[in-house]
Amino acid sequence: MKFVDKLLEASSLNDSLLCIGLDPDPTLMPKIGLLEFNKAIVDATADLVCAYKPNLAFYEALGIDGLIVLQMTIEHIPSHIPIIADGKRGDIGNTAKAYAKALFLTFDFDAATVSPYLGFDSVEPFIEYKDKGVFVLCRTSNPGAVDFQNLTNDQGIPLYEMVARKAREWNVSGNIGLVVGATYAEELKTVRQLCPEMPLLIPGIGAQGGDLASTVKYGVDAQGENAIIAVSRQILYASRGKDFAQAARNNALELRDNINNLVSQIVR
Amino acid sequence: MKFVDKLLEASSLNDSLLCIGLDPDPTLMPKIGLLEFNKAIVDATADLVCAYKPNLAFYEALGIDGLIVLQMTIEHIPSHIPIIADGKRGDIGNTAKAYAKALFLTFDFDAATVSPYLGFDSVEPFIEYKDKGVFVLCRTSNPGAVDFQNLTNDQGIPLYEMVARKAREWNVSGNIGLVVGATYAEELKTVRQLCPEMPLLIPGIGAQGGDLASTVKYGVDAQGENAIIAVSRQILYASRGKDFAQAARNNALELRDNINNLVSQIVR
Repeated sequence: MKFVDKLLEASSLNDSLLCIGLDPDPTLMPKIGLLEFNKAIVDATADLVCAYKPNLAFYEALGIDGLIVLQMTIEHIPSHIPIIADGKRGDIGNTAKAYAKALFLTFDFDAATVSPYLGFDSVEPFIEYKDKGVFVLCRTSNPGAVDFQNLTNDQGIPLYEMVARKAREWNVSGNIGLVVGATYAEELKTVRQLCPEMPLLIPGIGAQGGDLASTVKYGVDAQGENAIIAVSRQILYASRGKDFAQAARNNALELRDNINNLVSQIVR
Repeated sequence: MKFVDKLLEASSLNDSLLCIGLDPDPTLMPKIGLLEFNKAIVDATADLVCAYKPNLAFYEALGIDGLIVLQMTIEHIPSHIPIIADGKRGDIGNTAKAYAKALFLTFDFDAATVSPYLGFDSVEPFIEYKDKGVFVLCRTSNPGAVDFQNLTNDQGIPLYEMVARKAREWNVSGNIGLVVGATYAEELKTVRQLCPEMPLLIPGIGAQGGDLASTVKYGVDAQGENAIIAVSRQILYASRGKDFAQAARNNALELRDNINNLVSQIVR
């Protein structure tokens, strides 16, 4: 099954555009094993999300043990929920091939985020997996995003927009999406206009301060779909007590419903 | 000890600007275990290099087992030879912190390559490790490099040059270097002029077709130092027979000496 179909099915089944970022931070977590924590979060929220998105950095920081937990977390997530590897990889063709193999075959993710800095041959080995999703970084959610992504060319077009245009050109297999931060509503609007049908992975709500209403307004496609609103800290660390999973569920439920209300105001 | 001092000491001890990319590819390797292969390559070349550079992709492609081999390879490399983690990581501040921890503390690398696409806060957590080296991707060696890195702003300055300028600005702790491919001699020349004292990590010789003479000419600093010429396939896969380690040594020795001859023609 193609990634986008799997995404839309999960999204429709759970009536959700919410994606939970599984980014375990031992300094913020309740006192509990990492795998136990992830399993509890997944069990408490699997009927509320359209996808899960583990950011690889948090597992790599814990070394081999962390990567074993990552593997076991992937195995624990119900198979109908797509899992996005947030690794932002990007390397020359020969190496990108090894990264794509690592994420899509060895770890069996459904999709991956990739960096565009090295250009087409760094993205191509990922898009060759036609049933997998490839989210190209376009306009990221962090303050430093402006350093390079907003540099404009001699026609006044900023880099992030050039990336969106190229991604559209590269999208011959229909498996490319874009990462656009919720913290920059105008840019999100521009990207959605340029790529009206692409899935957009949108981090930046919650801890990073992005506004939910404009994110939904500008992020969804004409059918009110294909926006993957990724939230991590606000859900994972809703409580440090024994009730952490229930607290995570409460926050996820509230977010999902808020998003759905906002969608219903746009798409009639 | 600061990374650059460790680099210059190893470089001086082994009279070498050669860095071997430890990128094990099971389809090109002799029939031998991965760790055994890496150890044999290191044992055969540790007196000929200024650094080793494992590209993480090739280990991740092999899953947990691959990452255990990576860890054991790091432990096997003599401690006076710097090891550069080629992972091209780049993420928002909070996540970049986890990547820096993974590479500099958990895996104990001496330096890492990072992608500039997300801007300053994606690089900052790496440069905060003042004794570690941080190589920012500037002009990569692959064909797709032109897709974005050569886009020029309204003053005609290409993106890769903007990255070099920013990196210079960020280099308050003196631990930043740049990645510049050997396949683009003119760009290498420009970057060396912009950053006369920075270590440059230069891949692209050998399998990728970069020219050694112009790489040396434009890559080294005024003292004929601070160029790290990274070669992988040409050395690792010099032979698929039982003599692979000796063949790797022969190729490494020849390359090192060719580089030194070229340096001696420039610096007198």
